Amino acid sequence: VSPVLVAGRHLRTIWLAADGGAVEIIDQTRLPHELAIVRITDVAEMALAIREMWVRGAPLIGAAAAYGMALALRADASDAGLERAATLLGAARPTAVNLAWAVDEVRRAVATLPPGARAEAAFARAAAIADDDVATCRAIGEHGAALLAELHARAGGGARAVRVLTHCNAGWLATVDWGTALAPVYAAARRGIPVHVLVEETRPRNQGMLTAWELGEEGVAHEVIVDNAGGHFLQRGEVDVVIVGTDRTTRAGDVCNKIGTYQKAVAARDAGVPFYAAVPHSSIDWRVTDWRAIPIEERAASEVSEVWGVDERGARARVRVTPARSPVRNPAFDVTPARLVTGLVTERGVCAATPAGLAGLYPERAA
Amino acid sequence: VSPVLVAGRHLRTIWLAADGGAVEIIDQTRLPHELAIVRITDVAEMALAIREMWVRGAPLIGAAAAYGMALALRADASDAGLERAATLLGAARPTAVNLAWAVDEVRRAVATLPPGARAEAAFARAAAIADDDVATCRAIGEHGAALLAELHARAGGGARAVRVLTHCNAGWLATVDWGTALAPVYAAARRGIPVHVLVEETRPRNQGMLTAWELGEEGVAHEVIVDNAGGHFLQRGEVDVVIVGTDRTTRAGDVCNKIGTYQKAVAARDAGVPFYAAVPHSSIDWRVTDWRAIPIEERAASEVSEVWGVDERGARARVRVTPARSPVRNPAFDVTPARLVTGLVTERGVCAATPAGLAGLYPERAA
Repeated sequence: VSPVLVAGRHLRTIWLAADGGAVEIIDQTRLPHELAIVRITDVAEMALAIREMWVRGAPLIGAAAAYGMALALRADASDAGLERAATLLGAARPTAVNLAWAVDEVRRAVATLPPGARAEAAFARAAAIADDDVATCRAIGEHGAALLAELHARAGGGARAVRVLTHCNAGWLATVDWGTALAPVYAAARRGIPVHVLVEETRPRNQGMLTAWELGEEGVAHEVIVDNAGGHFLQRGEVDVVIVGTDRTTRAGDVCNKIGTYQKAVAARDAGVPFYAAVPHSSIDWRVTDWRAIPIEERAASEVSEVWGVDERGARARVRVTPARSPVRNPAFDVTPARLVTGLVTERGVCAATPAGLAGLYPERAA
Repeated sequence: VSPVLVAGRHLRTIWLAADGGAVEIIDQTRLPHELAIVRITDVAEMALAIREMWVRGAPLIGAAAAYGMALALRADASDAGLERAATLLGAARPTAVNLAWAVDEVRRAVATLPPGARAEAAFARAAAIADDDVATCRAIGEHGAALLAELHARAGGGARAVRVLTHCNAGWLATVDWGTALAPVYAAARRGIPVHVLVEETRPRNQGMLTAWELGEEGVAHEVIVDNAGGHFLQRGEVDVVIVGTDRTTRAGDVCNKIGTYQKAVAARDAGVPFYAAVPHSSIDWRVTDWRAIPIEERAASEVSEVWGVDERGARARVRVTPARSPVRNPAFDVTPARLVTGLVTERGVCAATPAGLAGLYPERAA
């Protein structure tokens, strides 16, 4: 049973269809206005779903890629089919390390098996990756909730809410369940700690609306603000803590995340507010030592020049906001250097954003 | 003759109609998609035009308020009429100090005159305020262009453009002509210095699109980015200087400007990029000593929840982006403390953002 309620139903973000013939996902480009569930029947569709961000969020991209590998192997379990699928999915998005990680996990799980056994093993590995993500996020929630409880107590406790600022969506929609940055919020709220979340809209794709929708469904107090306003509220003492997710965190603690995260971190530092990233093990890139080496995805200009929403009749619609002749640049991620990060909330506990901090929690990887 | 070309025409942003019966403005809510000129015939219309941001930008708000006073006195030149107009216009928007300054200027110019002479004197004072703004902005452009020339030379000169990042619109649309933050860009471009401007869209109202439109009309190279991306380009060494306008700058050099400016200043500081505000004398508030005392306008939630643009047929349209039930907060301005400001570009030259810096340029006011 999935712990997150949507209109009273328990949902994960990805699951094997009841008939076993497809993988089902939520088309997140239709949220927050419509909850649309889509059947994905082959690897090309899954690659499209990842590229077009029907599924998004580093942990969910990982699970989706794993299921994409399984769908591919059901159609063609040869070595060539395996490599084609890995290449196709691996190229769908460049920045989140979870994608490459999950593709490798499935490849390793099936490589030595005979073709006839590969699809079943891949589906099993994908399901295990999904279940592992749920357990990881739940643990991040518990460790993060302890942080929020401490901030609540330090602010005097009682009805005074802990005020969290977050950017983008690192909620259950970005993972298989629970979320990363929002898992502590959900866990704290269930412990009875009052929490209030300032939600940045997160242009250009407005994933903050996914966060606002999640919080609304869960009944967590929140307000939507433009990305420009986060610094102001930090400066005015209206934020107790910033928590964000990550698409890739280096072994040194540098946090690559949605464009705009870096600005928030420098503003938090200037305002003296702690800044945490919630980091599942699958988002740690142990190979990258220089964060400048992380590829930053440049997405289509239309994401900036056109804004999607609903019109007055509630129908999905878009408007163009830029002058017709003006060029656009659209980097999708940035990197917050470790020096600006107060700590990393992992499934094994909270650590300093340093090589030693991460090595202390993951000695088997840091060697 | 106005120096800024729009589709080959010379335009200011506000002028007395040819028939003398009204003041004409550009309805800036229709830009960048449509250039709509509106006749304003009485003070109530002018207050509406300011409140609804058909005219916006601190210097232009000042000129518009001055013309609004003149229109009011044409209808009712009594002392009571004068005070009613001052109250109505003064309440239209709270943050820009130019508004109160211009209302006071007109009030002082007519207070001792007999009612029959007031309207004419007020129109004359309004025209003088407008002309003074043009001269002020031109001088800011010259001083700022010298800065850009120096940065160009320091980067090796030649075809390598000076890369400017700006937020909101502090171009000719925000003033009577030339602009404040963009005046140096225009002046430098006319001197033959290659300039490239990264233009932040500036949610929630997307005044960056006005900047992009202005630059396009003038033929200045530019790219539109989301507000989240400015920090990334600063961090990656793709910006030589940040220049913004101001709605109110204190005698200590603290810069109140469009929401999001503060985040840009902390990012510029972190990245080691100089951050300048272009400050006409009319935007300096000599009375405020603590910037926390500046009233920060909170505008309607609909500015955040709904985005205006044009639909596929080119008609003005809006879409709702937020979840229907999510509350919104919408502060319109923030304050960048003087410690983050490299310098102030005034019509009298460039000075440090300090009490001594401003006092050195304006000894008659600082006493």
